[in-house]
Amino acid sequence: MEEKKYNAWYEETFQGTRLSLALEQMVYTGQSEFQKVEIFDTVRYGRVMTLDGVFMTSEKDEFLYHEMLTHPAMLTAIEPKRVLVIGGGDGGTVREVLRHPSVEKCVMIEIDELVVTACKEHLPSIGTAWEDPRLDVRFADGIDYVKNSEEEKYDVILLDGTDPIGPGEVLFAMEFFRACKRMLKPGGALALQSETPMLMGEVFAETQHKLRELFSTVAPYFGPVALYPSGQWSWTFCSDELDPLAPRAERQAEIAQGCRYYNAGIHNGAFAIPNYVQALIDERGKKS
Amino acid sequence: MEEKKYNAWYEETFQGTRLSLALEQMVYTGQSEFQKVEIFDTVRYGRVMTLDGVFMTSEKDEFLYHEMLTHPAMLTAIEPKRVLVIGGGDGGTVREVLRHPSVEKCVMIEIDELVVTACKEHLPSIGTAWEDPRLDVRFADGIDYVKNSEEEKYDVILLDGTDPIGPGEVLFAMEFFRACKRMLKPGGALALQSETPMLMGEVFAETQHKLRELFSTVAPYFGPVALYPSGQWSWTFCSDELDPLAPRAERQAEIAQGCRYYNAGIHNGAFAIPNYVQALIDERGKKS
Repeated sequence: MEEKKYNAWYEETFQGTRLSLALEQMVYTGQSEFQKVEIFDTVRYGRVMTLDGVFMTSEKDEFLYHEMLTHPAMLTAIEPKRVLVIGGGDGGTVREVLRHPSVEKCVMIEIDELVVTACKEHLPSIGTAWEDPRLDVRFADGIDYVKNSEEEKYDVILLDGTDPIGPGEVLFAMEFFRACKRMLKPGGALALQSETPMLMGEVFAETQHKLRELFSTVAPYFGPVALYPSGQWSWTFCSDELDPLAPRAERQAEIAQGCRYYNAGIHNGAFAIPNYVQALIDERGKKS
Repeated sequence: MEEKKYNAWYEETFQGTRLSLALEQMVYTGQSEFQKVEIFDTVRYGRVMTLDGVFMTSEKDEFLYHEMLTHPAMLTAIEPKRVLVIGGGDGGTVREVLRHPSVEKCVMIEIDELVVTACKEHLPSIGTAWEDPRLDVRFADGIDYVKNSEEEKYDVILLDGTDPIGPGEVLFAMEFFRACKRMLKPGGALALQSETPMLMGEVFAETQHKLRELFSTVAPYFGPVALYPSGQWSWTFCSDELDPLAPRAERQAEIAQGCRYYNAGIHNGAFAIPNYVQALIDERGKKS
């Protein structure tokens, strides 16, 4: 079959690999004090947002990432009422959080107001919960917040940050993880995106070991995210009391009904650790 | 972090998406009557082979594909002695097949001798079993073979073909699947690569329904393959007698020890069907 020709492409280069998407039109370009925000329409992934040229989310595949960051922790927690999201300016994570009826308050700390403003206007299909009265969006530094807040602690904390390259590095620092734990209630769960084990194996393994110093259960889990390097992504579930393989089945069935990726089988299967990933973790363990 | 600059890239364009790999050097280029065969060294995926410009396999990620095509069927079959592989010219699939001690004979039917010749010379780390006396490699048309062979039938058949685009389309035709079943022993299992549900949802769903006309159990399963479009791939297990969720645990533990991706948890988890994929299958069912 002859490949259709497209004249314009948007490309992201990541350490010797490059993913390009055929472009229909640029929709928005803005520059905040933190980063460049771009939103555009593509042929195969619908509308896409990038930050500093890195693919963050697309209409076509966003559900993979947002459901997998959110539901394993939310459905393992006993009755999550207070939820903290750090990052997540496109609104996809808080949308999934707020589908859980037990939630009374969801605080989202996003450093860059421009991401939210741009996504509200140009990616309304992702952030469908901005008007939910339980949502409290604050434009602030999430690191400062978890270090210094005197607010009531949280049942679930979700870290929806950017890659640990350049400015995002602090989001994978021990100091930050420790401060997050400070804001977690006893019996709570924390989940974070933890990068691609295929292309960022060292960061992935290092992160596992940092978290193991803080939590008695640290369980990485895996799933596809088409627009992220290698296409295989990981998240990590952390808790001192909860077993991620024992989600609350009744609530799970209800939530899964409204999901496009997640269900009970996906939940359990995602926690299976590929042999090469286990080897990465074990090797890193020998070094320390 | 500043992205290192690379001057040469090898790119594959797939329907409005394009994956490019930073190139160290071309190693081999050849043209057979069927296709162009290229082998080259890349920065992030080691040595890579393409056919007509389409990424087929790489040293870095080949294990994902070959283990997942091979072991679910091989470990569900009761005691696979005779195995048929159609395609698979890089040798990765027969390598995994021949790790099973019960195998007495593995027939591999590859249409293009040049692929095998080139891979034997330039990708020896993938095809490590070419000298196994149980292996019978034949350069012939797999479609003719399954239609016309009068040989003894097989316990397991693995279809390791190219995409159903252009010349590969016949490898996803009902007529071909029916002929494959003709060559399968009662109690046997067939597995095939069945494309990316994310970007080839229609072909994926259509294939499921074709196979359901032939087999009482048709179970798609999923895993990452970094170099294939979208990064999420599918395979499909077919049998009239066997339950893919009941692999032989003792043999499985032995085989998994030598795997880089596959293990018991991965096996079961891979058969969890994402909601959007189930919806694709159901929608296609309504049309017929």
